[in-house]
Amino acid sequence: MHRTLAAQLPATTPGTRVRVEGWLHRRRTLASVTFLILRDRTGLAQVVLKDPAALAGSAGLGEETVVSVEGTVVANPSAPAGVEILDPTVSPLSEPAEPPPVELWRPSLAAGLPTLLDNAPVTLRHPRSRAMWQLASAGMQGFRRALTAQGFTEIATPKIVGASTESGANVFTVDYFGEKAYLAQSPQLYKQTLVGVFERVFEVGPVFRAEPHDTVRHIAEYVSLDAELGFIADHRDVLVVLRSALAGMLEAATELAPGALRTLGVDLPKVPDEIPVVHFAEALRLVAAPEDEPDLSPAHERALSAWARERYGSEFLAVEGYPMRKRPFYTHPQTDDPRWSNSFDLLFRGLELTTGGQRLHRYSDYRAALAASGQSEAPYEGYLQAFRHGMPPHGGFAIGLERWVARLTGAENVRQARLFPRDLHRLTP
Amino acid sequence: MHRTLAAQLPATTPGTRVRVEGWLHRRRTLASVTFLILRDRTGLAQVVLKDPAALAGSAGLGEETVVSVEGTVVANPSAPAGVEILDPTVSPLSEPAEPPPVELWRPSLAAGLPTLLDNAPVTLRHPRSRAMWQLASAGMQGFRRALTAQGFTEIATPKIVGASTESGANVFTVDYFGEKAYLAQSPQLYKQTLVGVFERVFEVGPVFRAEPHDTVRHIAEYVSLDAELGFIADHRDVLVVLRSALAGMLEAATELAPGALRTLGVDLPKVPDEIPVVHFAEALRLVAAPEDEPDLSPAHERALSAWARERYGSEFLAVEGYPMRKRPFYTHPQTDDPRWSNSFDLLFRGLELTTGGQRLHRYSDYRAALAASGQSEAPYEGYLQAFRHGMPPHGGFAIGLERWVARLTGAENVRQARLFPRDLHRLTP
Repeated sequence: MHRTLAAQLPATTPGTRVRVEGWLHRRRTLASVTFLILRDRTGLAQVVLKDPAALAGSAGLGEETVVSVEGTVVANPSAPAGVEILDPTVSPLSEPAEPPPVELWRPSLAAGLPTLLDNAPVTLRHPRSRAMWQLASAGMQGFRRALTAQGFTEIATPKIVGASTESGANVFTVDYFGEKAYLAQSPQLYKQTLVGVFERVFEVGPVFRAEPHDTVRHIAEYVSLDAELGFIADHRDVLVVLRSALAGMLEAATELAPGALRTLGVDLPKVPDEIPVVHFAEALRLVAAPEDEPDLSPAHERALSAWARERYGSEFLAVEGYPMRKRPFYTHPQTDDPRWSNSFDLLFRGLELTTGGQRLHRYSDYRAALAASGQSEAPYEGYLQAFRHGMPPHGGFAIGLERWVARLTGAENVRQARLFPRDLHRLTP
Repeated sequence: MHRTLAAQLPATTPGTRVRVEGWLHRRRTLASVTFLILRDRTGLAQVVLKDPAALAGSAGLGEETVVSVEGTVVANPSAPAGVEILDPTVSPLSEPAEPPPVELWRPSLAAGLPTLLDNAPVTLRHPRSRAMWQLASAGMQGFRRALTAQGFTEIATPKIVGASTESGANVFTVDYFGEKAYLAQSPQLYKQTLVGVFERVFEVGPVFRAEPHDTVRHIAEYVSLDAELGFIADHRDVLVVLRSALAGMLEAATELAPGALRTLGVDLPKVPDEIPVVHFAEALRLVAAPEDEPDLSPAHERALSAWARERYGSEFLAVEGYPMRKRPFYTHPQTDDPRWSNSFDLLFRGLELTTGGQRLHRYSDYRAALAASGQSEAPYEGYLQAFRHGMPPHGGFAIGLERWVARLTGAENVRQARLFPRDLHRLTP
């Protein structure tokens, strides 16, 4: 007999004998009857035990034991999804499970985050934990789909690199056959180099930050959704692609993870056809900040988001033109005023979601920019080679997957959106 | 004026003014005319310069300079793709490029592999190098598509791990905030753990091997296509999923990278509806090897592949039942004879392509297996927790992306299928 999934039961003809398999999510023992709630990857199924022999046979099987159940499908409007399984034969597929460290059948996990993370191999099984990751999984697919449809090539760049280029601090060192190497903080230099090969590239992969901060926003390893494209006019062309990527990620959530959205009660934002843009100088005026302020404070970001919602009905706002002195060396200046940059931060619901912009593309500009930032050219040798041999105007952006999911779901801690987070204090499980 | 891509030119009405942009792939100067061959992400376009002013204006632009060309589309049966661009205005988008280290316009790159790898930021631009990676890119997409259609959830597991579990040797160590950590050799333990959460999971991500061997088959970092699924009867169910993944990868190559297949002259194999299977003991008999031989030699693998082609018309052959003593501790034994395992190697065109099989799923079996292999339980704490709390019968496989592409294309060295390979001697570019 083929396995029937929980989600297929409501469409099964009543009276049919079926086999369902999954985890014993909950056992409820009443006076004359025991209910077993079975959990599989598609949902829950209710099994009703009345026969004394069957009751005795399953008595030793604790919650989380994996079982196979054969029984008869019967309609019951008061059962989950309107059906239940009667006259069951229950066969364990694993040994009887030990009681889980946290009760998984409760609607919410009644434990603090450290306990949940310490026991992630089991607590991730809770429907709310699963749902968080299902949104992440859908996000990756939506991102790729949107970019593939626009002629982007997926790349996979090295995570072990020979130089710590982008920022001297916050890198992990690796013993590479006796030599000192580093874990890549981002695919930035490689994705730019590969614009020279494929014009339009994206990568979905791990990045590593030796973050010395122990906050709800920092983890040491996360998934970065990176894109870079050539033959642009300026950063506004990058913003258009970023918009399509975000729209693709939201569409994928609706299409691939509707159950996760329901479980978490997520209210998805609408991405406007055109994301409103405000210049950094104008943004400072709007929040009544001094005009030489080099950055926006969290309070400023919240105020600007509120302004965009009010003025444009948009939960997204791009702030362009950030001061050059606050941007990395490869940032392209604003053509008519080099104090400002052709880059932007994207604000979403009051918080910075991602950064993007146009990069320098002329070899001589790179040499000048490295000299101005006091850096030697040697560690950038391969990168500079691409520019010596012709690179088009280009730019790109990066979205932190876990941050995206945390923002969408309103999770307090980015660790809730990662399967097995790594941080200053956590290297296991 | 919008940009027209090279591949769109043949469908453009002759006489239309267009703008094309790309790299100056080749300049051919004849007595009265100069041909500029432009390369963009879709192909090549021929631009014809006759006007002395235009000739003079573009004289200083060397190969690989990025240019924008406006001109008139004209049919010319002897031009590439049957069209060319006349009366052009050529504007550089980059500074004049320095001559590339290897001539990129020649049909094949005339340099040894070390030179090509040293100059990868530029040599990857060659159409044959690009085509190799386009097959890799299509492979990743085909793999994901095939598994997503079968209810698999994409996962992203930690690459920085606290214990070097799978094999003590060949791991890279990381300085993790002053603590010793390791780069994951595979997502094996995590993907099994996550079968407990999602039942069916896959991951496409980097794995790290501190391979002390300097061979054409070994690189220190590569992309692993990993899958793992629960509620199986045995390893044969895993082989069915592996078959569908390979078929998906081949379909994606045909659909997403037809140009790459043409450029490389690749003859794609057909995956039979059912991959033929031979038991290890029978395989030894077929190649007349001693019956206590613990492994198959390369010559044996070639002979068995030839046998499968002859007997089943199949370029794929699964050899099941490998001796338990040669398999990792989590391997499930053959139910009726524990000398053998419920695992397989998949041979493709005479070489081992991938390994898969059923894993143990009972907590007590893991404790016994670790004890038998002389390992302590401590480093496996999180992994063992999953089994203590109920895990279904499960199994999986892993495909090395670069190895797959190398085998498909007949490349001599797996480095040719990787964008910026890392090995014993190479950490840059």
